[in-house]
Amino acid sequence: MPRRTLKLGAVLLGVGGPGQHNTWLHPEIPGDASVDVHWYIARARAAEAAGFDLVFIVDSQFITENSPHHYLSRLEPLTLLSAIAVHTSRIGLVGTLTTSYNEPFNVARRLYSLDHISGGRAGWNVVTSGDAGTAGNYSRDEHYDYPTRYGRALEHVQVVRGLWDSYEDGAFPRDKETGVFFDPDRQHALNHKGEYFSVAGPLNLERSPQGQPVIFQAGDSEEGRDLGAAVGEVIFTHAASLEQAKAFRTELRERAAAKGRDPEGLLTLPGIQVVIADTDEEARAKEDARLGTKSFDRALRELGRPFGWHDFTRYDLDAPFPDVRADAQRSFRTQAEAITKLARDNGFTLRQVVEHLNASARSPFVGSPETVAGTIEHWFEEGALDGVNITVNAPSEFALFTDRVLPILRERGVVRREYESTTLRGNLGLPVPENRYTAARRAAEPAALAP
Amino acid sequence: MPRRTLKLGAVLLGVGGPGQHNTWLHPEIPGDASVDVHWYIARARAAEAAGFDLVFIVDSQFITENSPHHYLSRLEPLTLLSAIAVHTSRIGLVGTLTTSYNEPFNVARRLYSLDHISGGRAGWNVVTSGDAGTAGNYSRDEHYDYPTRYGRALEHVQVVRGLWDSYEDGAFPRDKETGVFFDPDRQHALNHKGEYFSVAGPLNLERSPQGQPVIFQAGDSEEGRDLGAAVGEVIFTHAASLEQAKAFRTELRERAAAKGRDPEGLLTLPGIQVVIADTDEEARAKEDARLGTKSFDRALRELGRPFGWHDFTRYDLDAPFPDVRADAQRSFRTQAEAITKLARDNGFTLRQVVEHLNASARSPFVGSPETVAGTIEHWFEEGALDGVNITVNAPSEFALFTDRVLPILRERGVVRREYESTTLRGNLGLPVPENRYTAARRAAEPAALAP
Ligand SMILES: Cc1cc2nc3c(=O)[nH]c(=O)nc-3n(C[C@H](O)[C@H](O)[C@H](O)COP(=O)(O)O)c2cc1C
Ligand SMILES: Cc1cc2nc3c(=O)[nH]c(=O)nc-3n(C[C@H](O)[C@H](O)[C@H](O)COP(=O)(O)O)c2cc1C
Repeated sequence: MPRRTLKLGAVLLGVGGPGQHNTWLHPEIPGDASVDVHWYIARARAAEAAGFDLVFIVDSQFITENSPHHYLSRLEPLTLLSAIAVHTSRIGLVGTLTTSYNEPFNVARRLYSLDHISGGRAGWNVVTSGDAGTAGNYSRDEHYDYPTRYGRALEHVQVVRGLWDSYEDGAFPRDKETGVFFDPDRQHALNHKGEYFSVAGPLNLERSPQGQPVIFQAGDSEEGRDLGAAVGEVIFTHAASLEQAKAFRTELRERAAAKGRDPEGLLTLPGIQVVIADTDEEARAKEDARLGTKSFDRALRELGRPFGWHDFTRYDLDAPFPDVRADAQRSFRTQAEAITKLARDNGFTLRQVVEHLNASARSPFVGSPETVAGTIEHWFEEGALDGVNITVNAPSEFALFTDRVLPILRERGVVRREYESTTLRGNLGLPVPENRYTAARRAAEPAALAP
Repeated sequence: MPRRTLKLGAVLLGVGGPGQHNTWLHPEIPGDASVDVHWYIARARAAEAAGFDLVFIVDSQFITENSPHHYLSRLEPLTLLSAIAVHTSRIGLVGTLTTSYNEPFNVARRLYSLDHISGGRAGWNVVTSGDAGTAGNYSRDEHYDYPTRYGRALEHVQVVRGLWDSYEDGAFPRDKETGVFFDPDRQHALNHKGEYFSVAGPLNLERSPQGQPVIFQAGDSEEGRDLGAAVGEVIFTHAASLEQAKAFRTELRERAAAKGRDPEGLLTLPGIQVVIADTDEEARAKEDARLGTKSFDRALRELGRPFGWHDFTRYDLDAPFPDVRADAQRSFRTQAEAITKLARDNGFTLRQVVEHLNASARSPFVGSPETVAGTIEHWFEEGALDGVNITVNAPSEFALFTDRVLPILRERGVVRREYESTTLRGNLGLPVPENRYTAARRAAEPAALAP
């Protein structure tokens, strides 16, 4: 068995992301980066040149005038990834699409088209949409509650995967000599009738080079973890500390095993922010400077997001933290409960909560190239992660990682030296799912299909 | 006023389209062209090199094992166009998206993303889906009836356009000196509550270089023409004869005028198939050979499509044409009624209907380069069309049009010599729709906005 190696993802952002506030002021970042396809293509090509396994595009479908900068105006993930696909050749392309406000037939088709266009490099980050206000953009009075959100998500992924199996390998002989274009025996309708969706199929796209796009999943609640254990192949998560990350990965692997899955088919890739300088001290100063740009007012406003954009500015900052968990029931419930528990456990006021959250925005991956490489290697060897999803902002900062940290990790054998495959699945070391009808055919007539 | 010039569209097909049956056997066409992004990119670049205004991608979301070759496996239009966008720089990119099975928020976002990615070259072909079976892929028991299909379509387009106005020009100063990223006064929620959709907005994308993607519309019924006259800027249609095309264009212009629109803002572009050879005789022989490849059995099966894939093989071929119009009510009703009327008026048997339809698949645009150029010019001067949408199959056939017909039309001043704009709207000579809030602002404070 080949040695397990660290997987590398690059979360491509336009003008910043969660916890980053004045990124757009950086001289290297164009103010309109979030709508500039050439900016994204250049970042993806830099990640590919450094041998990254994948680029990752986050998403949301709800804004107000109070939304953070990076939400206000940005390209739709799949449209963007399709453009990146034809200017890259090896790197994986992972797009976020919500199961709450997309039809499975459309999702299956768009991702499978990307998979064909990219030669087998597509991935789907399955989310359920946390912003309750999203419902108002899709003719619904309110967002789905948690059981419905995740019930739909599970069934949605199952339908999409079913549609991806519409054609077996070999369904299109396209033999100009014999005039045979198509073998109808290898086309299959799904005829799914479930609790949330009824989808007949078949999908109008043949099998792709990697069989099926890779399923990524991001969601922290009990329901979210269950979904990840059921269908996720890569889990996108946060990593506040080694212990927490290790516990999370262990739990997810156990849950997957309990569902009869091989835990090796489930990779955990936390999103991390690296802050690198020549020395540890300089790196810490750099992080201080970055955190210092965030105003208390902005932090107070953004605290509202997990609570369904609850308005915290109307409370006394020095009174005990208010209990507004009810507002989070159709929003980011898990995050809202964690914040409320933090306040209760410590007897924090509203002001203290905001200050504590600002302070805990510190990354565990700050230091000299040696320090950062060492921390990543340590977390990897300890079983806290299978890879990292690095947030990409200013090109020169990303270059510090690719040019100074990666060589150390490669030297130590933690990161592979070259792409090992042309598909995302191949580079991540994930198996190609056999088409269900091919499997059934093989079971029925083993001799006919033996090599 | 500049002279009116003929607009040029290229309908990019993979392995053929309606009425083309063995296209995939052509030695120049790869059997898997319909899933090969590089095939499409090369065809789009050839059209761009010839100065075409746009490429056009058709669509469907329903197949069975009996579907014609070109439906069975093909790329989703917007995913494909986004890839083409970043390998072209002037040509318009028109994608078909159905209003029946897509959410307006998602359509607005995807098309506007394409518009940003392409620098203002996106167009939307608004369709309502003719195949009744499509419903089964979207958790619906049956397809919408005509009034609902077109009622939804009209409201859908209005919502999408409303969302495209979410940001006025200047909403994003992104001034690194002053630190002003965003001007909240220029962001607007739509708060649409209609018969079919409730969409709050705003859309999370700023105004694009051409303001709004161009609206194309295809649909022949009374309801379809009404939609085209209401919101269409370009009408995609068929052109069986000069008289019919002229009557259609005249009617659409009158309908648009009756709705208070300037008819110059409504272009008619029929899809045409050109068959070109050195002499008229050779061209006719070429068309005969092409038509001869279509088998009677296949034609009989495909006759079922407008009637909701009704199975005509079960009838006596020499008995009078059966009346199965009822099956077409939620499908291609207009086409089904026209075929039934043809049979009744002529007392045709089923066999005669199939034979007649095969024979009438002849194109009016067959002949030497001079003949084809002359026919197009004649139709254009007669007011039967504003441009043509040429079906692109084998590259060498398309080259006969670009290299031998176009120079004649350019020589005569019918076709412009060079791109006149970087946007689709600019090249088609269509006005940039003013943002509704900017217009209101201008009306309220005329002095402040005067140039
Ligand atoms: C690391 C991480 C990344 C996420 N990224 C997205 C995203 O890009 N878009 C989105 O709509 N939701 C995203 N989500 C939200 C989840 O899909 C989910 O709706 C949300 O986390 C609330 O559910 P939970 O309580 O299960 O976490 C993300 C969640 C996590 C934990
Ligand atoms: C020239 C033309 C091209 C069309 N192209 C498409 C297409 O690509 N995809 C689609 O779903 N429907 C297409 N349609 C179908 C229409 O949207 C409509 O559903 C169908 O024509 C039946 O409606 P009608 O009776 O109004 O014509 C097209 C129609 C016409 C006339």
